[in-house]
Amino acid sequence: MVDIDGNRLNARLEAFAAIGGTVKGGVNRQALTDGDRQARQLLAELALARGFTVSQDPMANLFIRRAGRNDTLAPVVIGSHLDSQPAGGRFDGALGTLSAFEVLESLEDAGIETERPVVVVSWTNEEGCRFAPGCMGSMAFAAGEIPPDWQGKLATDGASLVDELKATIKSLPPAQMISLGFPIHAYIEVHIEQGPALEANDIPIGVVGGIQGTRWLDVVIRGQTAHAGTTGLAYRRDPLRALTAALSGLYETIMPDDTDARFTVGRISVEPGSVNAIPDVARCTVDMRHPDPMRLDEIEQRVLSSIAKEAKRQGCEAEMSRSFDMASCTFSTDLQAAIEQAAMVRGLKSTPMLSGAFHDALFVNRVAPAAMIFVPCRDGLSHNEAEHVEPDYAVAGCAVLAEATLATSRMTLI
Amino acid sequence: MVDIDGNRLNARLEAFAAIGGTVKGGVNRQALTDGDRQARQLLAELALARGFTVSQDPMANLFIRRAGRNDTLAPVVIGSHLDSQPAGGRFDGALGTLSAFEVLESLEDAGIETERPVVVVSWTNEEGCRFAPGCMGSMAFAAGEIPPDWQGKLATDGASLVDELKATIKSLPPAQMISLGFPIHAYIEVHIEQGPALEANDIPIGVVGGIQGTRWLDVVIRGQTAHAGTTGLAYRRDPLRALTAALSGLYETIMPDDTDARFTVGRISVEPGSVNAIPDVARCTVDMRHPDPMRLDEIEQRVLSSIAKEAKRQGCEAEMSRSFDMASCTFSTDLQAAIEQAAMVRGLKSTPMLSGAFHDALFVNRVAPAAMIFVPCRDGLSHNEAEHVEPDYAVAGCAVLAEATLATSRMTLI
Repeated sequence: MVDIDGNRLNARLEAFAAIGGTVKGGVNRQALTDGDRQARQLLAELALARGFTVSQDPMANLFIRRAGRNDTLAPVVIGSHLDSQPAGGRFDGALGTLSAFEVLESLEDAGIETERPVVVVSWTNEEGCRFAPGCMGSMAFAAGEIPPDWQGKLATDGASLVDELKATIKSLPPAQMISLGFPIHAYIEVHIEQGPALEANDIPIGVVGGIQGTRWLDVVIRGQTAHAGTTGLAYRRDPLRALTAALSGLYETIMPDDTDARFTVGRISVEPGSVNAIPDVARCTVDMRHPDPMRLDEIEQRVLSSIAKEAKRQGCEAEMSRSFDMASCTFSTDLQAAIEQAAMVRGLKSTPMLSGAFHDALFVNRVAPAAMIFVPCRDGLSHNEAEHVEPDYAVAGCAVLAEATLATSRMTLI
Repeated sequence: MVDIDGNRLNARLEAFAAIGGTVKGGVNRQALTDGDRQARQLLAELALARGFTVSQDPMANLFIRRAGRNDTLAPVVIGSHLDSQPAGGRFDGALGTLSAFEVLESLEDAGIETERPVVVVSWTNEEGCRFAPGCMGSMAFAAGEIPPDWQGKLATDGASLVDELKATIKSLPPAQMISLGFPIHAYIEVHIEQGPALEANDIPIGVVGGIQGTRWLDVVIRGQTAHAGTTGLAYRRDPLRALTAALSGLYETIMPDDTDARFTVGRISVEPGSVNAIPDVARCTVDMRHPDPMRLDEIEQRVLSSIAKEAKRQGCEAEMSRSFDMASCTFSTDLQAAIEQAAMVRGLKSTPMLSGAFHDALFVNRVAPAAMIFVPCRDGLSHNEAEHVEPDYAVAGCAVLAEATLATSRMTLI
């Protein structure tokens, strides 16, 4: 067992929440802004004070290294991110990064020598709100290069990615520069669930088996506008009638038939948008998710064919295109077992679960065994200034991470 | 039979279409603008040249009077309006006004003395787009007063109704001022159908039996926003799922079950409007119409209870309020019979029908027997610069109006 210091962890969470803190108790610490740089600086200072090695790569991913007994072996990497949504919470990312740092300090406090080096990471721009897409740091790390088409990339506020990376790297002079990508023995990330399941079942630890695949569709149905009062049914080509018929059927089947499936319509609109005019255009987005790629394909097919059928039935034409497609990932079963075992050692209830949201672990998983530990957040609320994690749950996640890190450092992973 | 001059009518339609004419062949002649005043001036000039009496009332309703044999009797009033939508067509309103004027000229040309005086009217602001509501002129005429709350009324462009009425009245010095409201023996209005039924069935004359009642609802359903990926079905309170379930059921029943019913959703939106967020608010408008007030009540009840039920099923709350309520009207059966008879005399096919849109006749019908004659418009298109009426159909409507006016002048109406 590794004794972690729960008070220190919760005090650190407080301290980092003050950087970019909002009046409502959340944080605005978007990627590569001054706030993000201050958070990186604080973490680096704390690390250097403990004698750890601090380094960064060309994507400004930040690494804090504690040597292992066999220091040439690939490290166990633990961490998450420090950037936030513009009106974000204080736990999304910060909890995983600071829990990992607490593990490093606890190992140091207890004088425990790990077989392998342990590296804490804070990945750059997980959120993807200032610069799209999200998970840029881990994505480039896994690819071993910065994608060439990111050269001209601009932020929502007009800033250049290249310039902001340079300035961020420059703002951390004590960090050694290393090149992008290195061998990783195992990657474990603590994160808040961002959903309601753990809290609702009073389970402190989620052992994340993988991340759902996600696919987005843009749907446009074209009909004909006409006067609401003068146009009888035979003369109507109403695209909204077609869309609601398709959607209501899909709502009644996709999720009710399969608890792993997700089906969400987050945007809907019609044109011309007049109370007394039949619309000529109806639009919506569809967000579909499933851990099984075959089932995701089936769901997409069902959505496409249902909308096409209902559009035709109303004399309308449907255009549908994918606007986003992210394959699912399955995490290392060895690491999942290590996490489950760690929870047991700590006397904490755990449950296997899937992640509905993307995380840096999805990209790291492409080049190394990876897994995640989820902890409950109040009301499943995230990307919200009211995001909250009970201190006991934060400590629980950190403790499980500590045990799992120690065990993994000794494990041979297949 | 009254011989009308079809060429003169179509030439007049051309001439008036040039006032406020748009490059796409439509008109922008909104109520009480310079264009509207020019059209009134032209009509008054033509009337004075024929020796008719021109007068206007405090709502700037314009009247052109041809004396009858028994000139103290209440007149037969025929006409429509000269104002248009901002991107309107050249026939909506103008066809009815200029057909009525053609009837007056034809009676004069033929030296036919009518039993009663015949008055051509052009009502002020039927469209209601610059100043709301529509049908202001006929509404005030029927009420016998200008509603006190119109005193401070402003146009969409900021102009004051009171000022614009004054300026419009002043722009027509040869017209006598008369007070608002006078006894009417019968009112007949020619108008384009603004729907597709007559054209589709190749019937030149619609005998309008009444105007549907219309009721508008504003619907708001409140649920809870959450992450599209992390939130399982049991934790969702999705207001759009509730709304599509209710609407798809209503689309499948209200109009299919009753050919006189109209059910239209012209606006729909959700908040926060993010692809990967379950909405917390879904909104829509509902436009319901039916000629039978009892059936309209039933339809409204069905809409309210269906939305409430589906909202409850999804753990959401629905708020619904009426934003508009216009009672249906039934036109004089004597006048309908006169119009049907007139079509027969002219050898024109006619069909009884209802109007889905409001017209000035709805308000005149409150104080005098009224009815309407519809003629086909291409593709049912109206409130559109591409609005078109075949010259033969325009002539047909005018000819039927002429016969019906002559007959009505002699009739005793119950």
